[in-house]
Amino acid sequence: MPLELISKLVEKNDTKLCLLVLDGLGGLPSGEDCVTELEAAATPNLDELASMSEVGLLVPVMHGVTPGSGPGHLGLFGYDPLKYEIPRGALEAAGAGFHQQENDIAIRANFCTVDETGKVLDRRAGRIATEKSAPLCEKLEKNARVEGVEVFVRPVKDHRALVVLRGDGLSNKVCDTDPQETGVKPLEPQVTGDDPGSRRTAEVAKSFLAQAKEILAEERSANMLLLRGFSERPKLPQMGEVYKLKCAAVAQYPMYRGIAKLLGMDLLEADSAKGARATSAGTGESFKDEFRTVAEARDEYDYFFVHIKPTDSAGEDGDFERKVAKIEEVDGALPTLLEVGLDVLAVTGDHSTPAAYKAHSWHPVPALLHSEYCRQDKVTEFAERACRGGSLGMIESRYLMSLMLANARRLAKYGA
Amino acid sequence: MPLELISKLVEKNDTKLCLLVLDGLGGLPSGEDCVTELEAAATPNLDELASMSEVGLLVPVMHGVTPGSGPGHLGLFGYDPLKYEIPRGALEAAGAGFHQQENDIAIRANFCTVDETGKVLDRRAGRIATEKSAPLCEKLEKNARVEGVEVFVRPVKDHRALVVLRGDGLSNKVCDTDPQETGVKPLEPQVTGDDPGSRRTAEVAKSFLAQAKEILAEERSANMLLLRGFSERPKLPQMGEVYKLKCAAVAQYPMYRGIAKLLGMDLLEADSAKGARATSAGTGESFKDEFRTVAEARDEYDYFFVHIKPTDSAGEDGDFERKVAKIEEVDGALPTLLEVGLDVLAVTGDHSTPAAYKAHSWHPVPALLHSEYCRQDKVTEFAERACRGGSLGMIESRYLMSLMLANARRLAKYGA
Repeated sequence: MPLELISKLVEKNDTKLCLLVLDGLGGLPSGEDCVTELEAAATPNLDELASMSEVGLLVPVMHGVTPGSGPGHLGLFGYDPLKYEIPRGALEAAGAGFHQQENDIAIRANFCTVDETGKVLDRRAGRIATEKSAPLCEKLEKNARVEGVEVFVRPVKDHRALVVLRGDGLSNKVCDTDPQETGVKPLEPQVTGDDPGSRRTAEVAKSFLAQAKEILAEERSANMLLLRGFSERPKLPQMGEVYKLKCAAVAQYPMYRGIAKLLGMDLLEADSAKGARATSAGTGESFKDEFRTVAEARDEYDYFFVHIKPTDSAGEDGDFERKVAKIEEVDGALPTLLEVGLDVLAVTGDHSTPAAYKAHSWHPVPALLHSEYCRQDKVTEFAERACRGGSLGMIESRYLMSLMLANARRLAKYGA
Repeated sequence: MPLELISKLVEKNDTKLCLLVLDGLGGLPSGEDCVTELEAAATPNLDELASMSEVGLLVPVMHGVTPGSGPGHLGLFGYDPLKYEIPRGALEAAGAGFHQQENDIAIRANFCTVDETGKVLDRRAGRIATEKSAPLCEKLEKNARVEGVEVFVRPVKDHRALVVLRGDGLSNKVCDTDPQETGVKPLEPQVTGDDPGSRRTAEVAKSFLAQAKEILAEERSANMLLLRGFSERPKLPQMGEVYKLKCAAVAQYPMYRGIAKLLGMDLLEADSAKGARATSAGTGESFKDEFRTVAEARDEYDYFFVHIKPTDSAGEDGDFERKVAKIEEVDGALPTLLEVGLDVLAVTGDHSTPAAYKAHSWHPVPALLHSEYCRQDKVTEFAERACRGGSLGMIESRYLMSLMLANARRLAKYGA
């Protein structure tokens, strides 16, 4: 409903909007000083920006609910994450940098170990490394043959892989084959609906799995596959249409590029990422590069989504100091973004990843919104507890987009 | 939706959760010092706990809406009080400590005064005292006879009583007989639906009322009954199933024990309540007893609901000083609860009952949430205006449960 309303109210003008996402930004107070990562970090540029902005806290999905990357980002783009979703297989495709086409069924695959009777011994094949699973994926893709269907098998990470079935008339109502326990055989790919497309998909999957068993027969640990989350390409409203904005994404990681693409954004390449894409943690230099990419494309686009990954990775690793360092590097690079000449700039995260929790968490995420028309508050520090007192209040992430549009004077009055 | 979502995300582990409800906790600033009851009270233990917790304010139902005990508690247990309800008759049964069975129709009954022509003179029979209404209930239950139906009549308080009709095939679509005005006859029990069960219930009620008139004929004031809120036993999702928690309630008052039972909690007896249940206001000793009951049952349950009544009673009486004293007694007993070894502890109220208002009110209720993973704020006082600045923000009561589960690491990530 809010998305439909906003869509009705949007108007075009020549303002420039930018959403800077520091993945997993929010933290928890910890250590002797009982401060969060963002509080511990020296962030003169973010603090100065905060003092000229309205700040607050964003609740990604619902109080107490920890979002995955999909729901976390959908919220920031103004999509209710309880209404719109990116199914597992499609997200896996996005994460693998695989462009899922309209007729593709994307499936998350886990390499597993089965015994001679076919019973699952290890659902994750000892979590084999990507270097070992990648050649197996290649072998599977090269050798598996299903009449009338193209099969893609791509490595994701460790035991995780992506299987895509490309063919006319395939549908997604097929159950996982992962039995979710060991000591039993994988499940057959069974249809949950009664449409011909899903029946066809189940047959294709069955044939592919029988071949996979043969192809992997010589392997000691990764000698079978479990399939989960059969997904059609999600039909999400496209940001360009909904918001009348020409949108671009600057992101290093395939997952976020994939999500952006599903929403219709163009993908821009930062200089540092050209050629071989960096998969290692970003640095201050690469952040500056991303910001420069925005500057270069400023005239071509209305809205920029800039994604910074290493804050989340550090949080997941429980590395408080590294998360602090990454925040400081972003802060150091920030002037490059501020020079772009943006009308509306929002800085926040898709969720919290406190180092003290070593995982995504449910805690609200600090946010700042800067424009000529923001209601500046008296908060002069960009951090969790300081933002609590700001003009934005504590609101659901999905409202950030309408606020950004309003601040860009792109939303008409509602009602006479 | 939120309850369904949470239900899908819950996982089991061995954490212990406790919700301590000080009934009617919230107050209003009043008196020379212009402070609330909670601000006036010396609460060193609650303040220390607050300083290690995230605090905030809970809106029980909706801004401006004053909840009864049913909606107030449903919210705290994570049930949207606008979606789920406990109908009047069923709540009356809970309040009377009457266990409503699946085929029972529970009805709130008011003793009233009618003149010789049957017209209502006083809808509350001069608010006769419970000591007078109780024997009348006994007489009614003993003498009223309806073929194939068992009739229970139990005193509640003053002119209020409970009538329960037990028999196969009874339904609840029957109108109140209370005309809501004097000078007219009570209404006939008429069906609003067209099902045989409701028609049967209306007939039974008619027969019962005719007999009641005879049985009470000699009474001067309480010579008739008005019936309201014909209720089947509410079918509420059971907490054990929804949250995968084994739940126990420690409450002295029948109403709260009844609500807990309707949600599937086990009822525990505090030592001080064993034998004759205390119906007088609780004291610091009885609060300690309740907390000890939690300690004794710690290993058997995952979730404890502890209910403290006297704060509300004092507020209803407009007795500011007594409410302050009761809060201080709870504070004094608190260390006994803190010694239990809980992973997640929430302290709040089901609604406000400001002494200055002498009734339940709509004002948000102070709340604190303590766990290893709470986002401690810098609030060091547990009180209405101090909590306004806390990390919890001002949220609807129904989100407290998902936050408690999240803090117990019992909620899986939403979406990939």
